[in-house]
Amino acid sequence: MPPKPNYEFKGKTVFISGGSRGIGLEIALTLAKLGANVAIAAKTADPHPKLPGTIFTSAKAIDDAGGRGLALVCDIRFEDQVKAAVEKTVATFGGIDILINNASAISMTPMTETPMKKFDLMNQINGRGTYLCTLTCLPYLRESAQRGRNPHVLTLSPPLDMRPMWFEPHTAYTIAKYSMSLCTLGLAQEFRQYGIAVNSLWPLTSIDTAAMNMILDEKMTQHRNAYIMADAAVVILSQDASDYTGNFCIDEAILRQQGVTDFSDYKLDKNCADSDLIPDFFIPEDIYEQAKAPPAKRDFVARVLRAKL
Amino acid sequence: MPPKPNYEFKGKTVFISGGSRGIGLEIALTLAKLGANVAIAAKTADPHPKLPGTIFTSAKAIDDAGGRGLALVCDIRFEDQVKAAVEKTVATFGGIDILINNASAISMTPMTETPMKKFDLMNQINGRGTYLCTLTCLPYLRESAQRGRNPHVLTLSPPLDMRPMWFEPHTAYTIAKYSMSLCTLGLAQEFRQYGIAVNSLWPLTSIDTAAMNMILDEKMTQHRNAYIMADAAVVILSQDASDYTGNFCIDEAILRQQGVTDFSDYKLDKNCADSDLIPDFFIPEDIYEQAKAPPAKRDFVARVLRAKL
Repeated sequence: MPPKPNYEFKGKTVFISGGSRGIGLEIALTLAKLGANVAIAAKTADPHPKLPGTIFTSAKAIDDAGGRGLALVCDIRFEDQVKAAVEKTVATFGGIDILINNASAISMTPMTETPMKKFDLMNQINGRGTYLCTLTCLPYLRESAQRGRNPHVLTLSPPLDMRPMWFEPHTAYTIAKYSMSLCTLGLAQEFRQYGIAVNSLWPLTSIDTAAMNMILDEKMTQHRNAYIMADAAVVILSQDASDYTGNFCIDEAILRQQGVTDFSDYKLDKNCADSDLIPDFFIPEDIYEQAKAPPAKRDFVARVLRAKL
Repeated sequence: MPPKPNYEFKGKTVFISGGSRGIGLEIALTLAKLGANVAIAAKTADPHPKLPGTIFTSAKAIDDAGGRGLALVCDIRFEDQVKAAVEKTVATFGGIDILINNASAISMTPMTETPMKKFDLMNQINGRGTYLCTLTCLPYLRESAQRGRNPHVLTLSPPLDMRPMWFEPHTAYTIAKYSMSLCTLGLAQEFRQYGIAVNSLWPLTSIDTAAMNMILDEKMTQHRNAYIMADAAVVILSQDASDYTGNFCIDEAILRQQGVTDFSDYKLDKNCADSDLIPDFFIPEDIYEQAKAPPAKRDFVARVLRAKL
């Protein structure tokens, strides 16, 4: 693994939506290794029939990694549940310094296959969930700022690339996902006065997660593992909150800025050529140049998905 | 008034959300003069204590203008009400050829003054309401296309200018409003295969409406009247639906493209200098050049609003 920034998160408290598995869990574990308290606010209390991980196994893994875990059963569609989860976190750890908006729902379907129930689920988890968690954590993030604890909001959402190719044929999903990014854009400005940073982070390539494998409908190996997102998150959360805000970060680009040049250990399959890695959605053209990524097969995911529709 | 395009809307059926007053009503009346059937789907059945107009006075005015009006009590936050309104329109007029997403809720407040109730109202009326009305009308718009009746969806929402100035200090409102525009961006692509046009229309200057006067908190006269939006709407709805789609139109720019050069009759106060007209929110810089508008006091509305916060 490339070296991680040598930053201290000891005693810092992180509230993360989702986090029973995948990218959210990897970020939580990495912060736990650096000494953080991590509250996992997610729905999965009982094991999923096909997917590993619950909030309780996550909290245990956080403890084992050297942090302090807190499992919170919380459906972020409901205001009272988010309020209770935030209050429980504050009662347990004494405050909140970092909010990670990680929870997300996805359905890559055109309007004709996206009735209101699906539309609502995606918007309530993604855009509204991000707004609700941020609104509910805001008083504690402001306290954190007043105590000089460098508060951050980090939302896992893409840059706002408005090319129609990212909308069709899944307008509802893109609206829901971009709403998370619009929160970053607006709240970064609104929170500047408080000294709270608000940034977004998105991967350049597909990441090996249960969710991704479900979307692809087959087990593929041309992914990076979630470590790259965790490392990039740590870099962002280490920045001065009063200065580093309103950024739409891409994992590889962030790590290159830190001097990382060898990304081979992030590959799920070490034998996969860089040029075979699956590029993620929503990446603006100029990012590929910035990230000095190999020529990417940009329409790969789209082709796989469209074949399913 | 500048000349209107000589287009025939006789027998075409329009479904419009909102429309008890303001821009929606003006578009409805203009289409009625050109022979359209217009269903007004809005909440206001009983007169507002301070504002004139109900769905019934609108429907009567549509009849008087030469069209056929239909008053539908409908809160577009509710799927069953929209479904009933759309079905009643089809039962009355035999189909739907044009959907105008006009209804909108606004609260220009920062997150600290925008609890979930306000956030939800704006998103449910603006972004979700646009999606729901479009989804519900879609089968009839497709029928209209099959019958060669040139179906259009027109949404009153702005271009997607991502400068942070349009978000702060009212992130929630901008997300809700931009969600309408994201619908246009995505659905224009999704509906190309059906031959249904999807466009957005937004005014260059403030428009004299009850809503605008409530936002400004005082009666001002440096507006244009709603005729300019109605005229621009007619131009857009007259275009070939299989060709003219995915556009973010600005009223003055659209009319200039039609050869209109004298905009003085659109001014509420004929003595108001062009340079004193209040510029609207969300207008990208390049539009001012395209529209050949006078140097506009672009921060005027923002200043008035911020003074209130």
